Amino acid sequence: MPANIESRRPTPPNVTEAELDRALAAFAAAIGADKVSTDPEVLKDFQDPYQVPGSATNLASGVVSPTTVEDVQAIVRLANEHRIPLWPISRGKNNGYGGAAPQVRGAVMLSLKDMNKVLEIDEELGYAIVEPGVSWFDLHDAIEAGGHNLVASIVDIGWGGVVSNTLEHGLTYMPYSIDQASHCGFEVVLPSGDLLRTGSGAMDNNPTWPLYKRGLGPTSSELFMQSNLGIVTKMGYWLMPKPEVYMPLWLQLWDDSQMPAVVDALRELMLDGTIDMRPQLSNTLCMASMLTARSDWYDGVGPVPEEIIDKIAKELGLGRWMMRFALYGDEAIVDHNFAKLKKRFESIPTVGVFGEKHGADEWETLPNPHERVQIGVPSLDLYKMAGWSGGDEGGHVDFSPVIPLTAKHAKAAQDLFKSMCTDAGLDYLGGMLPINARATTFINVIPFDTKNPEQVRTAYDHAKRMVAQAGKLGYGEYRAHLSFMDLAADQFGFNDHAQGRFNETLKDTLDPNGIIAPGKSGIWGSRMRQAGYPQR
Amino acid sequence: MPANIESRRPTPPNVTEAELDRALAAFAAAIGADKVSTDPEVLKDFQDPYQVPGSATNLASGVVSPTTVEDVQAIVRLANEHRIPLWPISRGKNNGYGGAAPQVRGAVMLSLKDMNKVLEIDEELGYAIVEPGVSWFDLHDAIEAGGHNLVASIVDIGWGGVVSNTLEHGLTYMPYSIDQASHCGFEVVLPSGDLLRTGSGAMDNNPTWPLYKRGLGPTSSELFMQSNLGIVTKMGYWLMPKPEVYMPLWLQLWDDSQMPAVVDALRELMLDGTIDMRPQLSNTLCMASMLTARSDWYDGVGPVPEEIIDKIAKELGLGRWMMRFALYGDEAIVDHNFAKLKKRFESIPTVGVFGEKHGADEWETLPNPHERVQIGVPSLDLYKMAGWSGGDEGGHVDFSPVIPLTAKHAKAAQDLFKSMCTDAGLDYLGGMLPINARATTFINVIPFDTKNPEQVRTAYDHAKRMVAQAGKLGYGEYRAHLSFMDLAADQFGFNDHAQGRFNETLKDTLDPNGIIAPGKSGIWGSRMRQAGYPQR
Repeated sequence: MPANIESRRPTPPNVTEAELDRALAAFAAAIGADKVSTDPEVLKDFQDPYQVPGSATNLASGVVSPTTVEDVQAIVRLANEHRIPLWPISRGKNNGYGGAAPQVRGAVMLSLKDMNKVLEIDEELGYAIVEPGVSWFDLHDAIEAGGHNLVASIVDIGWGGVVSNTLEHGLTYMPYSIDQASHCGFEVVLPSGDLLRTGSGAMDNNPTWPLYKRGLGPTSSELFMQSNLGIVTKMGYWLMPKPEVYMPLWLQLWDDSQMPAVVDALRELMLDGTIDMRPQLSNTLCMASMLTARSDWYDGVGPVPEEIIDKIAKELGLGRWMMRFALYGDEAIVDHNFAKLKKRFESIPTVGVFGEKHGADEWETLPNPHERVQIGVPSLDLYKMAGWSGGDEGGHVDFSPVIPLTAKHAKAAQDLFKSMCTDAGLDYLGGMLPINARATTFINVIPFDTKNPEQVRTAYDHAKRMVAQAGKLGYGEYRAHLSFMDLAADQFGFNDHAQGRFNETLKDTLDPNGIIAPGKSGIWGSRMRQAGYPQR
Repeated sequence: MPANIESRRPTPPNVTEAELDRALAAFAAAIGADKVSTDPEVLKDFQDPYQVPGSATNLASGVVSPTTVEDVQAIVRLANEHRIPLWPISRGKNNGYGGAAPQVRGAVMLSLKDMNKVLEIDEELGYAIVEPGVSWFDLHDAIEAGGHNLVASIVDIGWGGVVSNTLEHGLTYMPYSIDQASHCGFEVVLPSGDLLRTGSGAMDNNPTWPLYKRGLGPTSSELFMQSNLGIVTKMGYWLMPKPEVYMPLWLQLWDDSQMPAVVDALRELMLDGTIDMRPQLSNTLCMASMLTARSDWYDGVGPVPEEIIDKIAKELGLGRWMMRFALYGDEAIVDHNFAKLKKRFESIPTVGVFGEKHGADEWETLPNPHERVQIGVPSLDLYKMAGWSGGDEGGHVDFSPVIPLTAKHAKAAQDLFKSMCTDAGLDYLGGMLPINARATTFINVIPFDTKNPEQVRTAYDHAKRMVAQAGKLGYGEYRAHLSFMDLAADQFGFNDHAQGRFNETLKDTLDPNGIIAPGKSGIWGSRMRQAGYPQR
């Protein structure tokens, strides 16, 4: 690639500026000129927000913002005709994994943020049907406005999208979040522009579309998650009846070496149903990064020393590990389960568990945003993590393999990741967010100062080394940063990368022109591979 | 088709006897002559057990019985070379849906029943990895033999296969059966003979293969369920830690008109987690068919009259509807939930709820087989249903659409199906088996005397009419009888059968020779369509 490419207008592979302009004009003619933009100020939003400024080559050439399913179909058909790769995003807030940037230089962003209607909320059956631009705030507000006796399981930061978070295997925390299984039924625009409904929705007027995940024959829903095989335009999302009691809980562990014992106790209590939601277990620095900045504690080079971590743990009252979790249900059951889990956890040295019960009238106004999140009340209050290094210009990349929820694996993963952070001179911000009673993501948040290009490069290089090193232990990422999706996908090497070959076969069949999100999850398709992608 | 075809040796479409013999010889050379059979006595097992004797044209030409994954791969590769359709079965006990018969005349049965090893049981993480020939008896016995503190959610009749039941979206009853979600990770022989592992198994040595259902990128597991896109050769299956208390429960309803009110109460109690398993709600005749024969009560023509049904309900102590269900967990929680559900259900006129708690030492020897099934103890004691009409030579076809779990839909479905049964002169054996808190299968068991060809034909024709009629209401089958899979698939007509077109595209891509189970779930592929299938 020539050295001066960044100063040139981005165009897609093998597409001239004139051809790109014809495509953009065709998009505008099909869905309206006001829905198509090439304004450089607008396009700035579609970059990795945390990379070294000016270093990116994966720049978008335009953005189209459909408002209807028919718009999306029209754009996809035209993109095929003009060979323009589209990069669909809904809210584009996935900052720790590369933000709203496309993989392929010159791609046109397909922004779904204006398709933001909550189409239906059914209180009797507990579900919503939402469009891809609906944020957690939007869904919460629609439930409130309808006066429904329902709550939605949400993420930590309310500006993200319900559909996009679900499609990316993202985390939420309430009981329905177990196994990331609260979606039911997709409507999908296929790369051909054809429209598919998955599960029971494959039948006209089937009332079980948002109720039963399957139909007759193979179920294709999960083919469209972390995927570039189609664009999801509607999704069913299950909502939980308000429980009688919600009890947010905190566990503190003061002796770092007892972390594995906590993991074993947690698995037992999740397997037997005592804890039926997704806890968030964070080490001192991970918790502290949500409350303070690194510079409040230490301004030396290299990782924050152990004695400072101890100091932070004590002064902020965190412990060396802290677990955020909760109970939901009838008061008698919550009381029983609380007594049981408190006894079990507190049998581990230096562990304390505490929390208070709350009725529905208190949930919206709980002072601690962590406690609001776990009962479905969204906010932006937990965004501060990114400011650990570099304040307002701090950034982070996240690396998040999945490991068995056992003491043995938690210890092995922590030993590896902590020593790799130390070797790289980086702070170790670790956390576990169990997916179910058996497996957990082991999140590594790698913070840096975006004003310091050397630190940014160190962090990204470090994350890549961790992906490869974890792969050797058999730990795969549950979600990959845009900058190392190919590397993360390469770790899935069973039978000479059978999964990758299978995905490429589907890609070439369903999207022969390689129009939809080429490179997503390491899946490129033949046309883009012939055009020289991936560029390593 | 010539009238005398049935007396000729079955051969696959466009394959001569000589070509078939060459293929069978190649199979024998590859995996051993003892694993290939064309013995007519052996092949008799691969027919719909309940159809009019001698009426079937969909006869198998041979059976191959691999014992290893490599055997399966070899057979699939040879089948491609020789253009021989294979019909995979594991236990072949799916009698109400057509048994072990193939769709295409002359297909070679790929019997997986000799791949019957429980490969692993992990007590700490609560899972088994099983081969496709493992029966419910085998799994139960392996858990017992290992002395594990685990129970498996099972079906009513223990001879069926764990893998095949799961792949067919089959029912089990314990908490993990909700959403048919207790499988985790497949190993699949693709139609090319290539080997794929889904979810985390796509990474070599990934310990979360049986723990976390996804990997990185799209998840293909459910593409291989009710499917002819591959042959599942290994499966992870989650096992539940033994609860402190198991409490089998019975609900009786004496006023038929209150059934919808019971459905609404059931949904409420499932949505709020009080009932966390899959109940079985059966009408009088459905329950009676498991205990007695029709001729014990009535020998008239046409449906059993209402007054006789009342008599059966009273004399057998069943009620007009009876629900089998259970609670599991800590004794304090079971007590709380029992009191709550009893109060709620008994607020409905003529409803009674009763049951008793049992500790683990009692489960294996509970006298009632229904109560053993719900705690994972398999038997053949519940096989008698098939004997309602015709005794030892009785048969049944099952029709089982999915409807929302609401009073309104339960009443609409019952009104339709009951009147259709009455019009056809058939008994109405109905039942509901909720899939989750929001949707339920509405099973119609259509019993007949296999010695009476007219009655058999009437029953099959009736079932087909019900499929089409239910489709008009937007109710699709969760599972289709072999004899009307095409019709059931045709009901899924959204956007000019987008789902069917999508499935055919995948089939043609992954299985261009149409080797694996052509016609399964109405998916044929171009080669078989060109050969004249489906034959309507």
